[in-house]
Amino acid sequence: MLKTRTAYFDNAATTFPKPEEVYRFMDIFYRECGVNVGRGQHKLAARASALVSETRELLLDLNHCPEKRVVFTPSATEALNIILRGIGIKDGWNVYVSPFEHNAVTRVLHHIGQTVRINLRTLEVHDLPSIQEQFAAHRPNLVVMSHASNVCGAVVPVHAISAQARPYGAINVIDMAQTMGLIDTELSSSEIDYAVFAGHKTLYGPLGVGGFICSASANPTPLLYGGTGIDSANLDLPMSLPERYEVGSLNIQAIAGLNAALKWIGAIGIHTICKREAEHRNRLLSIFSQFSNVRVVEPTHPLSEHIGVVSCVIKGYAPDEIGKILCACGIAVRTGLHCSPDTHRQLGTFPSGTIRFAPSYFTTSDDFADLEAALDHIEQNS
Amino acid sequence: MLKTRTAYFDNAATTFPKPEEVYRFMDIFYRECGVNVGRGQHKLAARASALVSETRELLLDLNHCPEKRVVFTPSATEALNIILRGIGIKDGWNVYVSPFEHNAVTRVLHHIGQTVRINLRTLEVHDLPSIQEQFAAHRPNLVVMSHASNVCGAVVPVHAISAQARPYGAINVIDMAQTMGLIDTELSSSEIDYAVFAGHKTLYGPLGVGGFICSASANPTPLLYGGTGIDSANLDLPMSLPERYEVGSLNIQAIAGLNAALKWIGAIGIHTICKREAEHRNRLLSIFSQFSNVRVVEPTHPLSEHIGVVSCVIKGYAPDEIGKILCACGIAVRTGLHCSPDTHRQLGTFPSGTIRFAPSYFTTSDDFADLEAALDHIEQNS
Repeated sequence: MLKTRTAYFDNAATTFPKPEEVYRFMDIFYRECGVNVGRGQHKLAARASALVSETRELLLDLNHCPEKRVVFTPSATEALNIILRGIGIKDGWNVYVSPFEHNAVTRVLHHIGQTVRINLRTLEVHDLPSIQEQFAAHRPNLVVMSHASNVCGAVVPVHAISAQARPYGAINVIDMAQTMGLIDTELSSSEIDYAVFAGHKTLYGPLGVGGFICSASANPTPLLYGGTGIDSANLDLPMSLPERYEVGSLNIQAIAGLNAALKWIGAIGIHTICKREAEHRNRLLSIFSQFSNVRVVEPTHPLSEHIGVVSCVIKGYAPDEIGKILCACGIAVRTGLHCSPDTHRQLGTFPSGTIRFAPSYFTTSDDFADLEAALDHIEQNS
Repeated sequence: MLKTRTAYFDNAATTFPKPEEVYRFMDIFYRECGVNVGRGQHKLAARASALVSETRELLLDLNHCPEKRVVFTPSATEALNIILRGIGIKDGWNVYVSPFEHNAVTRVLHHIGQTVRINLRTLEVHDLPSIQEQFAAHRPNLVVMSHASNVCGAVVPVHAISAQARPYGAINVIDMAQTMGLIDTELSSSEIDYAVFAGHKTLYGPLGVGGFICSASANPTPLLYGGTGIDSANLDLPMSLPERYEVGSLNIQAIAGLNAALKWIGAIGIHTICKREAEHRNRLLSIFSQFSNVRVVEPTHPLSEHIGVVSCVIKGYAPDEIGKILCACGIAVRTGLHCSPDTHRQLGTFPSGTIRFAPSYFTTSDDFADLEAALDHIEQNS
């Protein structure tokens, strides 16, 4: 049953396809105005700069925080590096993380831990009262939370936890790589200090642009040094936000794609997108329930909210074997640890991992039918 | 004389337009195969991975060094940060730089200098015997050279200088942001440890991809931490090159564009491109020589080779004023310090800077005619 089409269930890695508007606008804008932003006085540079400003505003509007600032980086990983290494984690800090952190957080904290003694603690995210106790016993200095797990889709109650951490003066960082543009989130509250995004995932934009939303007074130590197009005679980086953190040329093509994506989300409506994702998750769960050899993997203490991502294991097969079989059946998934070994430790699926299915707004009935047929094929050949 | 078209002379900031092949292939590839590289087993991921491998090979072929390795980063600035901060500059090191360094080098060295005592020295690049004396007097530990100035276009004899530095065990880093794909360069020699490139400049690729070429045994301390798609259970980054330095999702769209650009360069021929750039430089110099109020800015001790970039000042006007007038005339240039304040100090044009004209392969006779008309207009209104 070799297929020429691919049923793409790897949207947690990167959403694919993108809305037609994204491809089209990115191509047109880059052809018409593919110049360097903020580094020339000419009309094309001005047009490119206006696009960047508008895109920042669209991101702030989406998250209901017009008073905040957007810093663009090439990726969410880089944004997390800038934040976690720039906020000045000190010896003896109590750093809390969700059970669902990606290596973009855990490897960074591990690196910091080589020179600074960090007390790393995992939050009992399903149990807010116990978090209150955890915080009272060991006052939080920093709380880092994946808004949603990239492995099992569980959504962490980031606002409730941030609010509990705030009275201790903790810095709250949320990683919205899997949620921005999908879960309607209020970032104007003072509790969330940094919200990280990946343009190419739930925002339906292209690779090459991510970043973070923070207050105008945020001032982490920069991680990268270089030209900023302003204040060039200064050997130090300018103090102004976002320029201080946006060294090198901004990727105007990627930002154009993100701009179109944000307008597409606005036109469809974030709640419509979220509703469809919930339907897709239910569709996946319904398909899996038909196969006795398939076990959906969930946290021991499940959370009430989920994004579309579902992980499972199939009896008698290692996840990587299933990945190969599904590949031959034209089903694109990602198997293994998904760059989140700690999540798999929590889920009891370390070290072999799971098979992850991540639908998107564009997943079709044909995709689900192909998946069902493939699982049928696996069951019959078991 | 307001113009609707723009004569673009800002190619040192980013080449514009790109070859038609670049726009087209980037769009098609991202529509057909816009997935995450090295993080899935499916066919699309395999196709994307093959494209990335081919692009690395094309870069090595272009620079005659098939035995070396390519590390992709989102920008040349990031590549320079990784290298300069990863090689372990130590207290008391003699660090030599060319007179033409960009803030992507000078700000990074200044930052390192906050915690490590660096003896920073400027190379007399026009005088190789004097460099020999400099090196003998203060043994070089690190030599960082812009292959060509982004302000005046002077080409630094990087091979000759690297060869002189090598016997002292110095690390040689060359910044080819303004030259790779334009000047045929031999990187297989053991003298050059790191050669940095920007995909979106003389390589005629898109924004979003840069990187460096190094030996397979290069091992700077990583600057960024995060997911690599391999060895996920390891809290440390994998030791393998290039994965160790390529955290987060590779920008497959940008790499597709660079792939098409490298094939375009191969089809046209780097020597043909270089010849046309030389003609364009001569055309600029010939135009400027017609105007007595225009003074071309060159180093006190000119170098024999140049890329197309030419800087000038116009009597009676600050460069920024000229930038605005040219902008109104439909001429895109960049004025001021070009993120290279030290170059302007050398050229005697600090702090007001110059007006920079940077043609590309695609600069047309119409562009030059527009420029000539604009300079006429300025002269008549002086």
